[in-house]
Amino acid sequence: MPARRCRLALLGFGTVGSAVARRLVGPDLFPGLALTHILDRRAALKQAQHPDLAHVAWTTSIDDVLRSDVDVVVETIGGVDPAASWIGAALAAGKSVVTANKQVVAREGARLLRIAERQGRQLRFEAAVGGAMPIVRAVGEGLAGDRITRIVAILNGTTNAVLSQMEATGCALDAALAAARARGLAEADPSADLDGDDACAKLAILCALAFGVRVEPAQIPVRTCSAIAPADLAAARRDRCTIRQIARAEFDYARARLTASVAPERVAQTSIFARTIGPENAALITGAHSGETGIFGVGAGGDATSVAILSDIVAIARDRAAIVPAPHLISAFRVERSELEVAC
Amino acid sequence: MPARRCRLALLGFGTVGSAVARRLVGPDLFPGLALTHILDRRAALKQAQHPDLAHVAWTTSIDDVLRSDVDVVVETIGGVDPAASWIGAALAAGKSVVTANKQVVAREGARLLRIAERQGRQLRFEAAVGGAMPIVRAVGEGLAGDRITRIVAILNGTTNAVLSQMEATGCALDAALAAARARGLAEADPSADLDGDDACAKLAILCALAFGVRVEPAQIPVRTCSAIAPADLAAARRDRCTIRQIARAEFDYARARLTASVAPERVAQTSIFARTIGPENAALITGAHSGETGIFGVGAGGDATSVAILSDIVAIARDRAAIVPAPHLISAFRVERSELEVAC
Repeated sequence: MPARRCRLALLGFGTVGSAVARRLVGPDLFPGLALTHILDRRAALKQAQHPDLAHVAWTTSIDDVLRSDVDVVVETIGGVDPAASWIGAALAAGKSVVTANKQVVAREGARLLRIAERQGRQLRFEAAVGGAMPIVRAVGEGLAGDRITRIVAILNGTTNAVLSQMEATGCALDAALAAARARGLAEADPSADLDGDDACAKLAILCALAFGVRVEPAQIPVRTCSAIAPADLAAARRDRCTIRQIARAEFDYARARLTASVAPERVAQTSIFARTIGPENAALITGAHSGETGIFGVGAGGDATSVAILSDIVAIARDRAAIVPAPHLISAFRVERSELEVAC
Repeated sequence: MPARRCRLALLGFGTVGSAVARRLVGPDLFPGLALTHILDRRAALKQAQHPDLAHVAWTTSIDDVLRSDVDVVVETIGGVDPAASWIGAALAAGKSVVTANKQVVAREGARLLRIAERQGRQLRFEAAVGGAMPIVRAVGEGLAGDRITRIVAILNGTTNAVLSQMEATGCALDAALAAARARGLAEADPSADLDGDDACAKLAILCALAFGVRVEPAQIPVRTCSAIAPADLAAARRDRCTIRQIARAEFDYARARLTASVAPERVAQTSIFARTIGPENAALITGAHSGETGIFGVGAGGDATSVAILSDIVAIARDRAAIVPAPHLISAFRVERSELEVAC
């Protein structure tokens, strides 16, 4: 048991942040954890709406959090700015940080991990990729004893919900998108999901963990899913396939060549990817010695994401001096677009 | 980078131990790791056969290892005796320990983890369950932020190779067993695999990690797979099913009731378990908040197991002061046999 309770501050009280708060004051016991601060730009309104969180200090000011005695800052505001600078400031102030922010980790992860290492604190980000599916630990730790050569994955729950709905009902993309919005699975502007920006950020994080390479999300070739029509899915079905947004990356260590893409691809109806439905995520990881390891699970939504965040918080509370190593990433490699075996 | 190289001793130079040694002196770089000692009861013979390991101190005496300056002892001898006492002695001597030994972890894991905690050392055992499939980290860490309620899994690669071979060829169990032996997937006496003892030990480990309960492998109801005949598989096929050895455990937290079994079960041809072929393992983990998370991979063999062992060694080398917490397991619960939906 920790010597003293691990005090938590939550940055952002949206879908994910409020799910984390609900878990921390809910029936599941997290002994040793105490939510003490919540930062939100509409703190007063949200505080009034949440009498069960009356014991928490609500604020709109990051300085209140940085000056406080919280041990762990949980960042769920999303976007690069101001999240990246707030995470850096929290680490500099001696806090550990748990984040669900794929854009920040993909762009600034190596730099922030170095700050954490220097400070003797931790930056953990299981929630940044794959929702509840613990792929960050699988790639970064569980398969650290292998030489990982390839990752093929569905990493965007919104696009997967849209494409699997089109497949199931034959509807047009707009109708599937409306259905996904109604279920809380798509935002007003879904372009970051459909175009592949979201999956690129997640794939860049996995490339760092798996191959030790630093690739900017913008370096990964993308093709949008927004042009997929019912006729494409019907044609795929005739060949016993369906269409999914597939993120793939392969690293040739000898030639220092990264081959990667995020694009709609035909996948066999019998494959794990065709069986990935709705907001699920899935990944196949190939290792030189372990062969193929697969993982799948709920990839989006407040509940699933809160599990990954709480797992990271529990890890920090268990071992406050744990080292989350800053990776030594190489940048001197060539990026090529994957040659898709069957394009749409 | 570690301040000084992490020195390793290997206990046992069989299939798994020799695979670990090959990796450590092979082309994959593990900077900071140095294999310095190998203990084997036929040390002289094996030393003569392995000139590439001439720089290593070979011994038949555990005292040589305990008195040495090695940092991590890697136990791959299998069986409870003397492995359990050697692991305890290594921890007492201030070494961290990595083990692939499911019988020791299932029976003595909690006690040994307490010794490790007291000593400020680590006991890691990713290789004890699921081969390369990183299920120990998935359940113990990645989903630690959830309340896990159920695990259903294929945990024995030998039995799975036999049953999937019978399914594919229509052959009898003895013939499938002979084929598995020829591929190095079955031992001379396969009873621990077919009868379920092996899977019970692994399931007991997962119950401790997932539910925080201490169940002895012998408390888990088993039914052997050794009586499965081609006619059973043919009958299952007519119902669009097949047969697998399924380990399942479900914990009712409110009633403190564990329901568990290891037995041959019918599984739908479309299920992840039917698609688990040869020595593969697979698991579905249900969490109250994350829903269903799945993981699969190569569950047996020296190469796959060596990946899990090396991942644990790398984790210790990265953070020699890391805390692998001793779980607070409850023993006051009732164990019941799972009511199988479709028995064979």
